[in-house]
Amino acid sequence: MAKKAASPGDTSRRPSDKDTLGKLRGLSRQVVQQVRKKQDPMFNLPLRTLSNAHYNPKRRIIEMGGARQSRELFNLGQAKSFMQSLLIASGVKDVIEAGKNASLRSLYYACKHDIEGTSEPTFEDQEESDPIIEDLEVTLNALREELHLFAEARGSLAGPITITDRGRHQDCMELGSAGYPIPSIVEPDVIKFKKCDAKFVLHVEKGTVWQRFYEDGFHEKHHCIISHGQGQPPRGCRRMLFRLHNELKLPVYCLLDNDPWGHYIYSVIKQGSINLAFESQRMAVPDAKFIGIRSRDYEEFKLNKNVQIKMKDVDEKRVQQILDYPWFKGKRHWEKEIQQMCQHGFKMEVEALTNRSLSFVTEEYVPLKLKKGDFLD
Amino acid sequence: MAKKAASPGDTSRRPSDKDTLGKLRGLSRQVVQQVRKKQDPMFNLPLRTLSNAHYNPKRRIIEMGGARQSRELFNLGQAKSFMQSLLIASGVKDVIEAGKNASLRSLYYACKHDIEGTSEPTFEDQEESDPIIEDLEVTLNALREELHLFAEARGSLAGPITITDRGRHQDCMELGSAGYPIPSIVEPDVIKFKKCDAKFVLHVEKGTVWQRFYEDGFHEKHHCIISHGQGQPPRGCRRMLFRLHNELKLPVYCLLDNDPWGHYIYSVIKQGSINLAFESQRMAVPDAKFIGIRSRDYEEFKLNKNVQIKMKDVDEKRVQQILDYPWFKGKRHWEKEIQQMCQHGFKMEVEALTNRSLSFVTEEYVPLKLKKGDFLD
Repeated sequence: MAKKAASPGDTSRRPSDKDTLGKLRGLSRQVVQQVRKKQDPMFNLPLRTLSNAHYNPKRRIIEMGGARQSRELFNLGQAKSFMQSLLIASGVKDVIEAGKNASLRSLYYACKHDIEGTSEPTFEDQEESDPIIEDLEVTLNALREELHLFAEARGSLAGPITITDRGRHQDCMELGSAGYPIPSIVEPDVIKFKKCDAKFVLHVEKGTVWQRFYEDGFHEKHHCIISHGQGQPPRGCRRMLFRLHNELKLPVYCLLDNDPWGHYIYSVIKQGSINLAFESQRMAVPDAKFIGIRSRDYEEFKLNKNVQIKMKDVDEKRVQQILDYPWFKGKRHWEKEIQQMCQHGFKMEVEALTNRSLSFVTEEYVPLKLKKGDFLD
Repeated sequence: MAKKAASPGDTSRRPSDKDTLGKLRGLSRQVVQQVRKKQDPMFNLPLRTLSNAHYNPKRRIIEMGGARQSRELFNLGQAKSFMQSLLIASGVKDVIEAGKNASLRSLYYACKHDIEGTSEPTFEDQEESDPIIEDLEVTLNALREELHLFAEARGSLAGPITITDRGRHQDCMELGSAGYPIPSIVEPDVIKFKKCDAKFVLHVEKGTVWQRFYEDGFHEKHHCIISHGQGQPPRGCRRMLFRLHNELKLPVYCLLDNDPWGHYIYSVIKQGSINLAFESQRMAVPDAKFIGIRSRDYEEFKLNKNVQIKMKDVDEKRVQQILDYPWFKGKRHWEKEIQQMCQHGFKMEVEALTNRSLSFVTEEYVPLKLKKGDFLD
């Protein structure tokens, strides 16, 4: 019943596994050579700080700048992270060579032990190993997915597309009522796009909203892919949107809440996050459009005052942060949009449209916005 | 491409829709008749409190007792919840008659408006509507799923079983690498079991652990279904385990963390929760077995001290609560198990076994426990 294609040894290697292993060996070779030459062991890595993340207005994504730092063994403040980096690199090498994938937590446990001759653990907790993994990503210029590391899978999609997932055909019109769950790793060696009749992707925030679109057959009527990321979309989901957009040339429309959290989700899908600036170029979709919920929808669709969710201090604060982001800053239409929300003094969720009727969002709201081409860019 | 079978009007009605609608009409008819007879409008409903939830040692599940309360319109303390109950009942009737399903949040918005002639909303927030829905479930003796209400879907499964999901065949050996995502509503009218060659179900706590079993082909080698609930399994996942166990006679083994949270998840799968005692009879699997992680595994499998997670005050407190649960209380082997954890003074996660090797859990730990029949009941 099971196809051999799913056995990890055959297919779970990235096409670039050889490259990644080469990079890992390069790093360790450098350190070994330093030791042999009686130099202080160290390596350089790009600086993963706010100050080194910039919005590139030409590419319209957040990028990591050129600033670098060194990590040295004979430096009291860096000795531990130097050791941890090489330990993680070694753990990753084992995982790739075994043709397996590991969760971030498994790798943490696999690399955790007492430093020889002491009772000092190599890692206190996973909060120490995760940033080291991100450091390794930028050091090697290899995404976490290329390092064979995964996180909890979240989000799903449905629509007229056939996907081959580790050799198994998934007709995303014929799957179950929770759709095709988007794996944590969706790199092209394991996830391939086959036949696609979709005209665009409609990405929504929550699974329950997605369920409304699915049940109402929106993806059938509008020949589109509907996707969700269970809130802030995880990397697998963002990478999937990126690939659908870039490989299949599908426009991506985002239906998110009219609140700072919805705006932030949009900005991460569109330009990437400051935190993980180095991954934007393989995750961000600068052409993504915001289809709603808009502040003016309250008046335009004559929504009942009971859909209002009062803005709190934390929202006001978040709004200010978002307005200060360089990629929102210059955009008059976004400033206006956010100012109107603040003037209202309330937020609105996508589900607010239920106040008109259960399927108002799928039968009237989104079709109208699509027809008019009424998006925020 | 899309089969008509998925259009909601045809298939999304529960077999008992007629019954449920009958019950809803019965409730409103009763109230209308009271009004016509100039009686005070009221209805009775079972008491959903801790004091009315009991462990039934014979059926080995938590059940709701016989205590009832009345909800009266002409009672200052009950007038609002009386109104809310009828409003929710009316909203649910609309959803069922439309042949649709609604999320809890959508129903909240759909039923939220100002009370005529006032600026008082019918519901302040969803925390007011959710308990009213649970009240309606017990009043009508109709599960939320029968009321066509869903929540966010969580959890998935894979293995040698074919499931028909709203008319679409899902061979759960041939799906993508995140498995078959378990919908929020898995009632027999929409989810049917077809061919099944599985010998048992192995339920794990987290999606990342599930991924390890999936990637290692555990479900293929051991002819079983592997499932997870993304933490505390939601109702859809529990109902799925219930159906797999009762309809297909599959034993259910649970692989959970060695901590109070893992023990609690086990007890909810096995006996149900106090909170939703009324649903136990259609969700609980009293024959479920706990396969690990066991406290003694630390010594038995010579685990490194670095897998220890120190117990905190909140854990100690939770342990005491769990030991006081009547269904743990009488069981010497469980008391011993929990006491040993407390004596250790540390908790262990399933991922702790990674410290031995990445696939130790799938290749050695679980196969050994299965072979020996070494479970906690």
